[in-house]
Amino acid sequence: MDRSAEFRKWKAQCLSKADLSRKGSVDKDVVELVQFLNTRDQFFTTSSCAGRILLLDGGINGFEVQKQNCGWLLVTHKPCEKDDVIVALKKANGDATLKFEPFILHVQCQQLQDARILAVRSTHGLEVPLSHKGKLMVTEEYIDFLLNVANQKMEENKKRIERFYNCLHHALERETMTNLHPKIKEKNNSSYTHNKQRNPEKAHAQCITKENDKELENDDDDLGINITIFPEGY
Amino acid sequence: MDRSAEFRKWKAQCLSKADLSRKGSVDKDVVELVQFLNTRDQFFTTSSCAGRILLLDGGINGFEVQKQNCGWLLVTHKPCEKDDVIVALKKANGDATLKFEPFILHVQCQQLQDARILAVRSTHGLEVPLSHKGKLMVTEEYIDFLLNVANQKMEENKKRIERFYNCLHHALERETMTNLHPKIKEKNNSSYTHNKQRNPEKAHAQCITKENDKELENDDDDLGINITIFPEGY
Repeated sequence: MDRSAEFRKWKAQCLSKADLSRKGSVDKDVVELVQFLNTRDQFFTTSSCAGRILLLDGGINGFEVQKQNCGWLLVTHKPCEKDDVIVALKKANGDATLKFEPFILHVQCQQLQDARILAVRSTHGLEVPLSHKGKLMVTEEYIDFLLNVANQKMEENKKRIERFYNCLHHALERETMTNLHPKIKEKNNSSYTHNKQRNPEKAHAQCITKENDKELENDDDDLGINITIFPEGY
Repeated sequence: MDRSAEFRKWKAQCLSKADLSRKGSVDKDVVELVQFLNTRDQFFTTSSCAGRILLLDGGINGFEVQKQNCGWLLVTHKPCEKDDVIVALKKANGDATLKFEPFILHVQCQQLQDARILAVRSTHGLEVPLSHKGKLMVTEEYIDFLLNVANQKMEENKKRIERFYNCLHHALERETMTNLHPKIKEKNNSSYTHNKQRNPEKAHAQCITKENDKELENDDDDLGINITIFPEGY
């Protein structure tokens, strides 16, 4: 079997498996993006989260939230209200922590060159210890303030998903164009190499945004996401 | 110039440049690791942080700490005491946030195969809004509790750096051995491919730890770090 057929087989296997996440389905806010990637022959997604607010009941000393012994007191992909957290905190026995986890996406690709856009992690999170051995360490006023911050991050996160989706569309359209007109490709490659040598991490974002989306030019953080790569060979 | 010579030239250029970080030097706890990587022909480091506790004075609504308008009220690579934070918080005008940022390391490599170990990010952080428009939103008791958590994370982070350094040593020694005895290589590759298909992200950590370090076998989190790759071609 050639490499391309092998990748197709692997993709089919992975996409036909049951969704093993707690939720059991792709989050609403990234369904379109995930479906878009999975229609492309060279990609498939292996996991994603649109972004969520979590309340975890962790170990006794507030230090390490180990997966095996941490309880999920609350999880939501929508804005969250103080009362929901107050009620959930009552069930905490150990050290409860409120987290905001932004958009995350893992993508497998057939060729290394496609890995430029693959796997995305955002940098704007929250991780706030709230209780110690079941005792609340903050006021209700603080929880209200904190949820305001978390909900704003959730809102901004949604915008970033949209921007990423738009940029991805542009990039893949451009790639299709490039394949039809190889001269453009040459130009792109040299620009890309230049970015890479200044800042390898940022370059990944720039290779999507810089040339394709003028509105992002003044954004210091580009897409506001880190892009990492999982080419098929690794 | 061949690819290898080009990489050497690029490495020499990068390493001869002034350190543009605020601190202006490599953090003590990662000096040995950074030096070790830079002695290898196939690698060089582009940035690193051993882990730090930061207090930032952010924008007015506590939402986005933009680099251009955020003030660093406090930064330390050592355990931190409550009074240091209390004093520093008095200088806050906006929304101050306490962060613990764990070990981070960016490495460039000459060949894709070396990228398996490159660029490391740890997952155990803290990001805690403490004040709003200059007004403290938590008690001193909470700050004490929070710093206890942060300092424990700092301690754990140090151990993870040591484990990573040890694992890296093992992996590179093994690689040298493998190059001398190609039969071992074949065995390693098949094991690696198997890991990859289950979980591409975790596989990166496992390819270092799984075979080389028995003490890590029961650690659900492997090294407790995410490994991402920046091969030279990207």
